[in-house]
Amino acid sequence: MLDGWIDLRSDTVTHPTPAMREAMARAEVGDDVFGEDPTVRRLEEVAAERMGKEAALFVASGTMANLVSLLTHCGRGDEVIVGDQAHTFLSEVGGMAALGGIHPRPVPNQPDGTLRLEDIEAAIRTEDVHHPRTRLIALENTHNRCMGAALPPDYLRAVRALADRHGLRVHIDGARIFNAAVALRVPAAELARHADTVTFCLSKGLCAPVGSLICGPAAFIREARRVRKMVGGGMRQAGVLAAAGLVALETMVDRLAEDHRRARRLAEGLAEIPGIRIEAHRVQTNIVIFELDPQLPLPEEAFLAALAERRVKILRWGPRRFRAVTHYWIDDTDIDQALRAIAEVVGQAMRGPHLS
Amino acid sequence: MLDGWIDLRSDTVTHPTPAMREAMARAEVGDDVFGEDPTVRRLEEVAAERMGKEAALFVASGTMANLVSLLTHCGRGDEVIVGDQAHTFLSEVGGMAALGGIHPRPVPNQPDGTLRLEDIEAAIRTEDVHHPRTRLIALENTHNRCMGAALPPDYLRAVRALADRHGLRVHIDGARIFNAAVALRVPAAELARHADTVTFCLSKGLCAPVGSLICGPAAFIREARRVRKMVGGGMRQAGVLAAAGLVALETMVDRLAEDHRRARRLAEGLAEIPGIRIEAHRVQTNIVIFELDPQLPLPEEAFLAALAERRVKILRWGPRRFRAVTHYWIDDTDIDQALRAIAEVVGQAMRGPHLS
Amino acid sequence: MLDGWIDLRSDTVTHPTPAMREAMARAEVGDDVFGEDPTVRRLEEVAAERMGKEAALFVASGTMANLVSLLTHCGRGDEVIVGDQAHTFLSEVGGMAALGGIHPRPVPNQPDGTLRLEDIEAAIRTEDVHHPRTRLIALENTHNRCMGAALPPDYLRAVRALADRHGLRVHIDGARIFNAAVALRVPAAELARHADTVTFCLSKGLCAPVGSLICGPAAFIREARRVRKMVGGGMRQAGVLAAAGLVALETMVDRLAEDHRRARRLAEGLAEIPGIRIEAHRVQTNIVIFELDPQLPLPEEAFLAALAERRVKILRWGPRRFRAVTHYWIDDTDIDQALRAIAEVVGQAMRGPHLS
Amino acid sequence: MLDGWIDLRSDTVTHPTPAMREAMARAEVGDDVFGEDPTVRRLEEVAAERMGKEAALFVASGTMANLVSLLTHCGRGDEVIVGDQAHTFLSEVGGMAALGGIHPRPVPNQPDGTLRLEDIEAAIRTEDVHHPRTRLIALENTHNRCMGAALPPDYLRAVRALADRHGLRVHIDGARIFNAAVALRVPAAELARHADTVTFCLSKGLCAPVGSLICGPAAFIREARRVRKMVGGGMRQAGVLAAAGLVALETMVDRLAEDHRRARRLAEGLAEIPGIRIEAHRVQTNIVIFELDPQLPLPEEAFLAALAERRVKILRWGPRRFRAVTHYWIDDTDIDQALRAIAEVVGQAMRGPHLS
Repeated sequence: MLDGWIDLRSDTVTHPTPAMREAMARAEVGDDVFGEDPTVRRLEEVAAERMGKEAALFVASGTMANLVSLLTHCGRGDEVIVGDQAHTFLSEVGGMAALGGIHPRPVPNQPDGTLRLEDIEAAIRTEDVHHPRTRLIALENTHNRCMGAALPPDYLRAVRALADRHGLRVHIDGARIFNAAVALRVPAAELARHADTVTFCLSKGLCAPVGSLICGPAAFIREARRVRKMVGGGMRQAGVLAAAGLVALETMVDRLAEDHRRARRLAEGLAEIPGIRIEAHRVQTNIVIFELDPQLPLPEEAFLAALAERRVKILRWGPRRFRAVTHYWIDDTDIDQALRAIAEVVGQAMRGPHLS
Repeated sequence: MLDGWIDLRSDTVTHPTPAMREAMARAEVGDDVFGEDPTVRRLEEVAAERMGKEAALFVASGTMANLVSLLTHCGRGDEVIVGDQAHTFLSEVGGMAALGGIHPRPVPNQPDGTLRLEDIEAAIRTEDVHHPRTRLIALENTHNRCMGAALPPDYLRAVRALADRHGLRVHIDGARIFNAAVALRVPAAELARHADTVTFCLSKGLCAPVGSLICGPAAFIREARRVRKMVGGGMRQAGVLAAAGLVALETMVDRLAEDHRRARRLAEGLAEIPGIRIEAHRVQTNIVIFELDPQLPLPEEAFLAALAERRVKILRWGPRRFRAVTHYWIDDTDIDQALRAIAEVVGQAMRGPHLS
Repeated sequence: MLDGWIDLRSDTVTHPTPAMREAMARAEVGDDVFGEDPTVRRLEEVAAERMGKEAALFVASGTMANLVSLLTHCGRGDEVIVGDQAHTFLSEVGGMAALGGIHPRPVPNQPDGTLRLEDIEAAIRTEDVHHPRTRLIALENTHNRCMGAALPPDYLRAVRALADRHGLRVHIDGARIFNAAVALRVPAAELARHADTVTFCLSKGLCAPVGSLICGPAAFIREARRVRKMVGGGMRQAGVLAAAGLVALETMVDRLAEDHRRARRLAEGLAEIPGIRIEAHRVQTNIVIFELDPQLPLPEEAFLAALAERRVKILRWGPRRFRAVTHYWIDDTDIDQALRAIAEVVGQAMRGPHLS
Repeated sequence: MLDGWIDLRSDTVTHPTPAMREAMARAEVGDDVFGEDPTVRRLEEVAAERMGKEAALFVASGTMANLVSLLTHCGRGDEVIVGDQAHTFLSEVGGMAALGGIHPRPVPNQPDGTLRLEDIEAAIRTEDVHHPRTRLIALENTHNRCMGAALPPDYLRAVRALADRHGLRVHIDGARIFNAAVALRVPAAELARHADTVTFCLSKGLCAPVGSLICGPAAFIREARRVRKMVGGGMRQAGVLAAAGLVALETMVDRLAEDHRRARRLAEGLAEIPGIRIEAHRVQTNIVIFELDPQLPLPEEAFLAALAERRVKILRWGPRRFRAVTHYWIDDTDIDQALRAIAEVVGQAMRGPHLS
């Protein structure tokens, strides 16, 4: 529960925990544009270490993490191979092209969040005066629109090998990479090692209020620092945010397993409700995507409104589609109550014309 | 024949005709940046009239025509729905993103060159802080990579209606729109009328040495003139080129039917050669795409080299794929000779290990 | 004093006050990307009201405030008239051009921070195919590189009138606009009213750890929200920062007068030190710029190092030039001590070869 | 005379000569996008040789030559030091920023067209997270807005040395570099040798209808070829234009001395007309800039109109300012007639109210 709501729209809605608030209040700070905020520096060191990279950079959001990474990897007119369902391609306001002059080259995301190796290979450009230059393969792990699918180490290793054969770089949008690591029972660094750069968010499942990190080679991070300044992401006493981020990294990672367990429970519960369509077996992490039967006389807006009356919020996710995400502020009782609410609303819709 | 070659790589290889050369030598010219080249102005008027548009602008190439059109239609961060096989998306060096900050949103091209209406509709963005703004639907007619398929008026009308429902604009890359018009037996203006803007090339099937036109509303063309200057496309005594273009428009359009007849003949001939795969019935205009049987022990480079020994040039068009394009400088005898050459080379490859 | 240092390099080094820390710890928060963070909303309302504008937007930095403002005002290829000493032109990594395709058109900043009206007028473009389109006049108030000069209402009114005659917009980089307001003894809104949009920083003299605001018309701010998302400035539970910002706006503005008094005192003290050159009468706000006599046998690095030994930090600001900025964490004693340190170091350098 | 006019607005108005027209009609051509146009290749070789560079690239205009050069030299966010009166900065539609994300850093052009070395040096950026990276110094020779001033080898050598000390590149916009070479009595290569890249125009004083060249290192030109394609400058049978360009290079360079002689004669004649202000001694090449006395009761439009009645065209060049440019189609008689016309119109204006 958050402010009296079972808010399943996203794990971004998570409030900071009391421990985080206390850490923020006591944070040792400095001017991070001068490189003098000790808490930010500590967070960047811890983050780099967790990802097995040389260095890290604290930024304001997951979108900024990806944008700065892409602008650092790619010059004007370079091309990025990216999933056609990727957050970077669909939900970051087209920033890579709009701001960076980077040409996206989407290939189909498979239901498990991967891009088929043959599709990647076919999308790589030959040297030709008509072509942009392929520079980067961008993956997403876990994959939001693929129901939170976790990309396993073997797949990442194969992409790395392919990239190496063609002299390409690999970036992972790891907004929820700790969810992937927990689900796959591997250290996050095992996922990150196959990429040149990886980003992750403190403000999703890890509950911190604000912030993401870019992890990669030291020289890359140095250049990314300039790009961060260019997009306006240089913050002054950012240690107040980093302090919460450190608490998040230290105390909130392992418990993601609970969110996953609850997401599965939610998915299985949904699967039993007539009028709901869901591939419950696909739920690996904390994201549940389901559909309303097209025949069900229940408009999307009415569905959301009826749930809201029952203090449950989920997100519209396309025609007849919805997304529910579990997180720290959702407990077992909340899951039960959400399932009851959904069953009730859908049940009434099935029963009759009196609802319409 | 061109300089002793049967050059089927593209209709862009066409040399100007003697009539064009004469027109160039005699062209009345002026400084077109000052708007004072009478021949360019005449060409722009004729072009606009042929497309049924208010105004037209002469530019240096088909790529410039599309680039200037897209930059005029779209601001930084706008999104263009475009075919995933479109020339604009695949073969214009990513200019829309690289130079214009325009985000491409490819949807699958069907074999007939169309984009399915439901795919277009699904790709249109809702108003959301995460999304670029959909501004334009870009079609290609005829469609190069879809074997020169011609998009018929009914389809274009349907796209126009869809665009209107969503407040979008429609652009047609009509590099070969006269091929479409001739194949469909309609005036080009019947194809252009469903689009806000249309471009076409003088230097492909129409044989002029250099130049393309953008046709559209007068206000659009005024702004496009500034954008043309920005990309460096303002030429001075361009009337020397426009003079050839006028000859092309006046004398070279109707004869495209011959190129189409020869392309069909080429395709039918190829269909009879064992070891060649081709969907001959799809040839509508002057573009023929075919494949070498994957089993055939004939590497792509060896195939091209063996044809070159026989004075035939075609273009590699992907793995095991090739393109042959008919044009003014290819006559019936050339087609026969090309078929003989291909049959011979493929036949030798089939017959034996002695070739490898 | 800050951590044992008299840190005069910038007012950006200011730490949050205890009241701010407490406000952050207790802040009511929500997901601001969904528009649901009540503290951010309150800050935006208060900020808009203070500037006399319809709406405001919280962003991560002053650079982001300017970048988002410029990208919202200007399309690709628009031109901005800006001071040749402006922070936006010199110290924001060229973001307007690099990311936005906006062409800067610098005109000379006068010593008082203004741009001469005739220079602005001469820089406005005529409608011509060779020209970018002038869209915006960007001012800076107070003007950092012009020694913190405050641009008075009369000047701003005149620029507004000029802009209106030409259909241009006016933006004020008001990173330190409250310093201007306090120095000029007018409400900040009196300065902001002559501009379409104004930005200001919470993290400079006002001591908040992170954050700036863009204030302007409601429709502008709505669009700026998209642009903020595009640059990665959409933060989640940003209320933790906004809470400190509210304390800053409510309690830290009036006391800027003290910083100004101390800056004058510092300047007057410097003026009495042989070997220092300063136009002390120009100090209007909290910024002091001075020079070392070129003859003085004291290299810049040695000067800074000798000061650091005395626990004083100032900023190198060009050849032989230095900047000192007063702020909340600098009291009268610190000023005296800084003056003593500078006098001592310069005095030793004057006295003798033993130093070199 | 051109079509009955004494057209002094620009040397861009020059029509091709009969020899050029004949060369165009007979030109051997090919598809230059495939690199197969023999005439374009010959022109590129000759151009490279004339400039003492490894390679050259034929483009559609001087603006494209500069744009492609700048985009090839500079990545997104790089900074170019350029004269504040440079054509590239003022009259190329802001393309470097708009399309390339390149940040211009103008420094004052001196009356002789140079940038002071100390101004260049002061504009070079230090390595700092706030700064764009200085990449290039861009000069213009001859300098259009500085009355066609020619930058001599000694100055260019000094800029080169400065650039080398800072690891910067040097580009010369040599639209009229042959005018400089002729005026300075040095081979053009002596001017070009101090720059990495140099552009020049065939369509100004050299009379060719269309086209410019970029000359530089082979690797640079290879990359520029891709950028040219991106901006839409890849032309097909461009040999028809190149043929005229070859004639221009071979036959039209030495005769520029005549244009210079006539420009001086024009300037000296203007200097004797009361009501005209001109620094006649500054005329070095073919560009004459003069002013109407502000007191003279002769509005600019009226002046131009009265000249047009006398079949003379000059260009408005700022408030009370005008430009006249000599070229191939202007002979001694035309100069005399133009001077008579100007004297007459100005004389009438001085004599009385009856004109107004």
